Amino acid sequence: MNNNLNPNISKIIKGIKHEELSPEETTHRIINGDRNALSRAITKLESSKPNDQNFAEETVKLCLPYSGKSKRIGITGVPGVGKSTFIDTFGEKLIELGHKIAILAIDPSSSISGGSILGDKTRMETLSGKMEAFIRPSPTAGTLGGVAAKTRESIILCEAAGFDTIIIETVGVGQSEIAVSSMVDLFMMLLVAGTGDDLQGIKRGIMEMVDILVFTKDDGDNHDRTLMNKKQFEVALKMFPTKDSKWIPKVTSVSALENKGITELNSLIDNFFDHIKNNDYLYENRQNQDIHWLNDQISLLLKNNFYQNKLIKELLYKTKNDVCDKKISPIAAAKNLINFYFQNKKI
Amino acid sequence: MNNNLNPNISKIIKGIKHEELSPEETTHRIINGDRNALSRAITKLESSKPNDQNFAEETVKLCLPYSGKSKRIGITGVPGVGKSTFIDTFGEKLIELGHKIAILAIDPSSSISGGSILGDKTRMETLSGKMEAFIRPSPTAGTLGGVAAKTRESIILCEAAGFDTIIIETVGVGQSEIAVSSMVDLFMMLLVAGTGDDLQGIKRGIMEMVDILVFTKDDGDNHDRTLMNKKQFEVALKMFPTKDSKWIPKVTSVSALENKGITELNSLIDNFFDHIKNNDYLYENRQNQDIHWLNDQISLLLKNNFYQNKLIKELLYKTKNDVCDKKISPIAAAKNLINFYFQNKKI
Repeated sequence: MNNNLNPNISKIIKGIKHEELSPEETTHRIINGDRNALSRAITKLESSKPNDQNFAEETVKLCLPYSGKSKRIGITGVPGVGKSTFIDTFGEKLIELGHKIAILAIDPSSSISGGSILGDKTRMETLSGKMEAFIRPSPTAGTLGGVAAKTRESIILCEAAGFDTIIIETVGVGQSEIAVSSMVDLFMMLLVAGTGDDLQGIKRGIMEMVDILVFTKDDGDNHDRTLMNKKQFEVALKMFPTKDSKWIPKVTSVSALENKGITELNSLIDNFFDHIKNNDYLYENRQNQDIHWLNDQISLLLKNNFYQNKLIKELLYKTKNDVCDKKISPIAAAKNLINFYFQNKKI
Repeated sequence: MNNNLNPNISKIIKGIKHEELSPEETTHRIINGDRNALSRAITKLESSKPNDQNFAEETVKLCLPYSGKSKRIGITGVPGVGKSTFIDTFGEKLIELGHKIAILAIDPSSSISGGSILGDKTRMETLSGKMEAFIRPSPTAGTLGGVAAKTRESIILCEAAGFDTIIIETVGVGQSEIAVSSMVDLFMMLLVAGTGDDLQGIKRGIMEMVDILVFTKDDGDNHDRTLMNKKQFEVALKMFPTKDSKWIPKVTSVSALENKGITELNSLIDNFFDHIKNNDYLYENRQNQDIHWLNDQISLLLKNNFYQNKLIKELLYKTKNDVCDKKISPIAAAKNLINFYFQNKKI
């Protein structure tokens, strides 16, 4: 159609039109390693526009057959533990060994500001300049189900784009770890010796998810303390019940400053994956995770159907007023709305 | 009926039969300050048995008119910050002033072990011995919606039982804070100076929720550092956008060891409540929170209806197998199930 145009203008038009690529073309580009296509697809995943969501859903579906071959690694640790520095050093090592890594950051704390752990990409100075690394923050807008769903889908897209190691970074101690552990094969926790991150300080539920515990900043004055803490945790970890994976959690330490421990950690990670491949846990766990994903998706669709119903929209408006005026309790109001929904919808 | 029985046996039978109290009788006892009735009602709230849930729902409904008169205060802080010690000291002060306080702990990290922040009640030595204090941990079993719903309902029951200050304790930096802030009037964060809890370390989203920032352990060597940190945070907090409450967040410090700062903090809390009562924010915010509650409840009922449907149960079994066998993706499978649900259910 544009044969008569100056080739430069054609290029510009092509540039402007990138939003109109089909899911098929986007998938084609993603599996050929096009980072822009990958970025744009993830942006559509995170968009709240129905068109974007349909597009993203279709793209994820097309990418699925090309996914599943990466090591999915969750990394958590409280602020200040040095997650970015660690991932920078660790990622550099992986790239040296010929890997391609994608880093997805879940930041549940950013629901108000919309800010994000990796808003400042330069926190990973080495990686952010490399073609073998893809760094992507995901503000979560306050919906945990949302986090999980979108991050899972982002994993699929990154895998289709050829990244063989996917790192899911999350912050803090809590609900986001549960979401992340439902998406990864290996769950690592970072700690610093002697900073209140002691045994009492760490909630049991989190400890039970951990496959590898990594003490960061194992250098200078901190070395002796790290050694002592490592021993304590090794003893403590033995007292936990056996994991479904039959993997006995390991404790190790690294120093980004002195550039040590990364090779050992990497061997440990290889051991872990050998272990869960040999005993089929990798496969079984991913099946369970897919069921989890199915249930999350069902919840999402149920809610969409309810809230998009015209009669419900009208009734909800009135009900909300009644709740605000204390004419009815939220519990009773929800029950009434649901009864009305199921009685009146010809579905 | 039991007139002929030995009075001691009657008493024993009465004891055994406490489970069979009606919601009306339970409510009657709760509003008369019966702690056992309150405890048992919360246990039923947290039960997964339908009978217990119906009972609890009815009790909450009956207690609602007696609720709403307390100060609802959320307290967060990473492990090691001294939350239990702080609440112990703070609670003792409130009791001295004639208040009755209930402490509900949300522990999102305990989903695997079922353990809980306050599993060891003795961590609040002073309070756990007092009739004016009610301490209740809530393991959350991994469902955030669950947390929110049950804790909201527990607040109602505690208020009906006459507690005028409800403290919701949560741990860490993340999703649980978002849930808690949707249930309380005042959100406090505890920090310790010089432990990585610095400005960079705290996620912006959390800072924006904070009404009062409390440095704990303001004693001995730590006093100068606390003073410096307080100043930094005072400056920083001024740069945040104005809150809906129009309250300007305050920074203060306390020492449980030297028993200082608690009176000042308490005045600050009084100022806060005067402020939000005067400008109607207390009222408006609780309205918004009720709408939030309504939506959470709707989600819960939608899911219950779906998963309890007999046809869906059968189909879900087959679908899960197909997902596990990689015959269909979780996204496509969810779509199929939802379509079937709405086409075949005569509702």
